[in-house]
Amino acid sequence: MGIGQAKETSLYIGIDGGGSKCRATIYASDFSIVGTGVAGRANPLHGLAQTFQSIEESTQLALADAGLKSSDSKRLIAGLGLAGVNVSRLYEQVLNWQHPFACMYLTTDLHTACIGAHEGGDGAVIITGTGSCGYAHVGGEELCLGGHGFGLGDKGSGAWLGQKASEQVLLALDGFGEKTMLTERLFAHFNVNNAMGIVDNLAGQSSSTYAKLARNVFEAAQLKDGVAQDIVREGAGYISELARKLFTIEPPRFSMIGGLAEPLANWLDDDVIAEIAPTLQPPEWGAAFYAQQEHHKLQQK
Amino acid sequence: MGIGQAKETSLYIGIDGGGSKCRATIYASDFSIVGTGVAGRANPLHGLAQTFQSIEESTQLALADAGLKSSDSKRLIAGLGLAGVNVSRLYEQVLNWQHPFACMYLTTDLHTACIGAHEGGDGAVIITGTGSCGYAHVGGEELCLGGHGFGLGDKGSGAWLGQKASEQVLLALDGFGEKTMLTERLFAHFNVNNAMGIVDNLAGQSSSTYAKLARNVFEAAQLKDGVAQDIVREGAGYISELARKLFTIEPPRFSMIGGLAEPLANWLDDDVIAEIAPTLQPPEWGAAFYAQQEHHKLQQK
Repeated sequence: MGIGQAKETSLYIGIDGGGSKCRATIYASDFSIVGTGVAGRANPLHGLAQTFQSIEESTQLALADAGLKSSDSKRLIAGLGLAGVNVSRLYEQVLNWQHPFACMYLTTDLHTACIGAHEGGDGAVIITGTGSCGYAHVGGEELCLGGHGFGLGDKGSGAWLGQKASEQVLLALDGFGEKTMLTERLFAHFNVNNAMGIVDNLAGQSSSTYAKLARNVFEAAQLKDGVAQDIVREGAGYISELARKLFTIEPPRFSMIGGLAEPLANWLDDDVIAEIAPTLQPPEWGAAFYAQQEHHKLQQK
Repeated sequence: MGIGQAKETSLYIGIDGGGSKCRATIYASDFSIVGTGVAGRANPLHGLAQTFQSIEESTQLALADAGLKSSDSKRLIAGLGLAGVNVSRLYEQVLNWQHPFACMYLTTDLHTACIGAHEGGDGAVIITGTGSCGYAHVGGEELCLGGHGFGLGDKGSGAWLGQKASEQVLLALDGFGEKTMLTERLFAHFNVNNAMGIVDNLAGQSSSTYAKLARNVFEAAQLKDGVAQDIVREGAGYISELARKLFTIEPPRFSMIGGLAEPLANWLDDDVIAEIAPTLQPPEWGAAFYAQQEHHKLQQK
């Protein structure tokens, strides 16, 4: 195989690490999909060993899906979008990993999600799932807001909605407010009939347990439950304000990403709703695109 | 030793199990103190093995302090006040323990704290330390409010004050509010200079880490920091309302207990402040008194 030909058959792998899943997609240099793989969580904030294992596993699954050999990982130019690598200690630790790729380019999961959403162009994204955060990238300028995590921020996220609802229901059960439909919804969700039952199911649980309550909050708000409406309005108000802050650096495009993007959209302010554009590509695409760009830059030096 | 004499030399041990410490005090039948001991945490909600170990350790220390032998634990009539034993599963598990005492009487830490505060009489207490809760006991009627734990309630507690302050400071640093003295206080507390530094120090931490911030919130509020004042007022407002709810069953006495009782007192409503009476005895005394009462009841049957 000549060098020219080798260049043409360059393969990219885009990896999107997350709190519950790690998605890997292998792309040809024209960005046609060659193979995909999904493994468990890959969040450096929750452990590096598991992160590396999930990346390797999703890579192997993608290689197999592509009809390639395990050792072909050495042919892949990898782009990784991972949470927490804005912390320099974690960035260095991931960069020092004895990775299985030809070469590896690393950035945050927010950056790769944003690149994907706008198919390589500048833009802004708000991610609302278990957590919430905002990110914009315009002409080399970067703005990153929120995303401080469960109990510290993440307003408007699934875990935040679930936590606020639980708090209000427990206050109501102590007589500090009216019992509403939301109380019955939480009882039904946990199959319990008193405050102690709710506490038993939530004490010490992680954000994902709380996030599972978000659907109940939206449904109750839709049915005009006052307590649920107040919670959703406060969360959505924060997300609208977050969007406006991202708009200050004038991103040409704006998308909402994550499991709560759709239910929240109805509750956002009109000026924000008017700006929402569909996401064009997934974060894995963004990670592969980032790798290709960085790789070309390096080769041009 | 005759039976009459043996009865006169009955020894009681009162044990107050808590989230950070386990305190044991041995009393003679006239409630003069014979010996004391302190060991690590004894909260059944956080592990039974550790609870039993801390109870045994504090007992042995109290026996040594009293100049008694290790095997003299078999002479002790024990009263235990433990968190979580209002959950019947935990109550049964503690009761089934092969304890080292002559006999053992078990109730909640709230009940023994209330008995102690009012030296055996009926009354109400609000406990505000790392967490918060209210309890009243009047003529066999019992009222227990709040205490749902960190992230689910415990309004006005140290952990709640610290969590609200962190949330507001992180919002301010993202431009969602004014940076105030509270921001500088949190930076100084953690020796950091940005939001990431605060998040690094708090993410995944337990309620006690948050509770350590409470002092900063009170100090800033005292110095007229608007954000800190709003937080303290919301917390204190809840505690005042909690007190009024306890007053509905007409407790003859009311006390505030815990590390936050003093700093909070200034912020409570006047009608509540007017009712605050000093605590007369510690929870260990309440536990020993409870054991003596229950023991006499059993012997009279």
